Amino acid sequence: MNPISDNRPTALSEAERLAWLRLIRSENVGPVTFSELLKHAGTAQRALELLPDLARRGGKAGRICSVEDAEAELDAHRRIGARLVGLNEPDYPQHLRHIDGPPPLLSVKGGPSALTRERMMAIVGSRNASLSGRKLAARFAHGLGAEGFSIVSGLARGIDAAAHEAALQTGTIAVFAGGITVLYPPEHDRLLAAVLETGGAVISEMPLGWKPRSRDFPRRNRLISGLSLGVIVIEAAKASGSLHTARYALEQNRDIFAVPGSPLDPRSEGANGLIRQGATLVSTTDDVLEGLDGRLAPTLPFGRQFREDSKAAPLSPSDPDEKLRERVLAALGPTPVDMDELIRFADGDARSVHVVLLELELAGRLERHRGNKISALM
Amino acid sequence: MNPISDNRPTALSEAERLAWLRLIRSENVGPVTFSELLKHAGTAQRALELLPDLARRGGKAGRICSVEDAEAELDAHRRIGARLVGLNEPDYPQHLRHIDGPPPLLSVKGGPSALTRERMMAIVGSRNASLSGRKLAARFAHGLGAEGFSIVSGLARGIDAAAHEAALQTGTIAVFAGGITVLYPPEHDRLLAAVLETGGAVISEMPLGWKPRSRDFPRRNRLISGLSLGVIVIEAAKASGSLHTARYALEQNRDIFAVPGSPLDPRSEGANGLIRQGATLVSTTDDVLEGLDGRLAPTLPFGRQFREDSKAAPLSPSDPDEKLRERVLAALGPTPVDMDELIRFADGDARSVHVVLLELELAGRLERHRGNKISALM
Repeated sequence: MNPISDNRPTALSEAERLAWLRLIRSENVGPVTFSELLKHAGTAQRALELLPDLARRGGKAGRICSVEDAEAELDAHRRIGARLVGLNEPDYPQHLRHIDGPPPLLSVKGGPSALTRERMMAIVGSRNASLSGRKLAARFAHGLGAEGFSIVSGLARGIDAAAHEAALQTGTIAVFAGGITVLYPPEHDRLLAAVLETGGAVISEMPLGWKPRSRDFPRRNRLISGLSLGVIVIEAAKASGSLHTARYALEQNRDIFAVPGSPLDPRSEGANGLIRQGATLVSTTDDVLEGLDGRLAPTLPFGRQFREDSKAAPLSPSDPDEKLRERVLAALGPTPVDMDELIRFADGDARSVHVVLLELELAGRLERHRGNKISALM
Repeated sequence: MNPISDNRPTALSEAERLAWLRLIRSENVGPVTFSELLKHAGTAQRALELLPDLARRGGKAGRICSVEDAEAELDAHRRIGARLVGLNEPDYPQHLRHIDGPPPLLSVKGGPSALTRERMMAIVGSRNASLSGRKLAARFAHGLGAEGFSIVSGLARGIDAAAHEAALQTGTIAVFAGGITVLYPPEHDRLLAAVLETGGAVISEMPLGWKPRSRDFPRRNRLISGLSLGVIVIEAAKASGSLHTARYALEQNRDIFAVPGSPLDPRSEGANGLIRQGATLVSTTDDVLEGLDGRLAPTLPFGRQFREDSKAAPLSPSDPDEKLRERVLAALGPTPVDMDELIRFADGDARSVHVVLLELELAGRLERHRGNKISALM
């Protein structure tokens, strides 16, 4: 393979898109598992073929997304003028390629131009924001929009809505925790329509029509930070979703900007706390630009992609041996342990341990955690 | 001399106190010159004797404070129940001994207990503070007072007044830019009385009755920071006096704490700017205590003191030579230059160059700047 052309966007064939969609929509397959499966099986199609065996060896066969269901989802996208964009494709947001566990397929409605910019900035904060918090969100969104930034947020009440609203003329992205057809809160229908009419986009990694569960929100927040060069936090209470987004930003090596507020207002606690922990205090758009500094030079490599390789040696049904599986199972408990530590402890080759873990995950017996950690689901 | 007893407080004799007072009240003698004179002349009394000669060699004899004037100032202090405390004496505030150019004598009224604590904290901010700014000042003053801190401020309107007020029960120090009998603003007469009645103190380095000029305020601010372990800045506008105090705190290696505020309020600009520059963001008393951390262990050395040494070889009228004086004069201009650089350039021994500079200073032809720099007054 040519390593240069390898690092450029390439469109998926329709057969590949279908196989990718089936794989990521199958039970117990998340973005990390997707990538592991592709690595071990060579192609998404082969991974689908191996899935029943792997899951059965892990203890319990999960549901595999059928060709019909995947085709129905592709059709439904087409009908509403939306699409499923693959990680290797040119429309896929460039910074998102660099995070751990990027969604292999993004459900997207709206103009690609706002999505594919180098300059993207997340603005997040409290749903019950004060008037001055909203004003500040609008000021940053407007100022950064004028500097060519797409403004990324979650279309929630308060700060999110103020940021989207102020960025309509320059381009804004709403990231949903559920499917892109599941609007919340309902009164934001006009705002959403305006986002799309003005060249912005709405995106999600979840299937069309998916109703978000509470655990889908932090998962969504990793996309908000992952899409962006940095995250601006305005009026976030202690232990709020915005702080989760900031934590993801930190893990993803994004800049964290926080707008300070009076210690007398509990809504300042989150942002002030972030500043104490090292986030950059920002009062103006210029402060943000200054803080981004080196990041504004467009020198990012292409980033992560999934390589389909039909020549790869796929897993054979014989590996790995039963004893290794037992050792791995014995080593796992409800407390997350480090993957590398587990591999050393299990005393097998890394590839075989990975396969065992894949099997357990597909059987719904294993949970992945941040920082390359795993635990057993008891 | 015993180097240990040397580093313990020692009371001045009344003759010494008189000589010190005459010397520091003489024309063109500031705290740094005072210290230089003592070094070169051995004792304050001898310095007074040499003063006319030195100043004449510099170009112009300045006014020397007479015995009568100094005795009158001592008397006036006694009459109002105040005193002049020397740098080497036990009542002198301990942290102030460590700054560059500590006042050799402090004009003090009030209880010594609040003045001599290890725990002292300055709280400064805007005169036209908001209600929430005042509330925060009171909260910090109250909280730190309960932790045994004396609260230091300038008795101005706004933040200063709120801080003093909240610290009445635990001890507070008002530092004046003019003499301790020159109250400003006049409506703070009851607050000042309360400060003194509750064991607090009012201090100044200026003579009784001295009306403050605008340049006396920054000079006073160096005492506010110098007295304290750290400075808390609340609601300071850009280019305000509180920022000067923070700059002195930085130079004096004190901690700088800043209370954040909304970027929509111009009164937040100063404190937010300090945080951007590295000051510690504080919302609560605990944040301050945490920030002080290592400083709370009472391990400070005694600090600077002025040693009178009657056996020291005083300056002889013959040194330094005329040529050196010319070289130093030629090297000086209105732009401040580094003292060490000047000594190298002038090509004389350091002691002789210092004497020439002392002469020029006493003649009012030289200005000292921070960071060991000097310029000619043209």
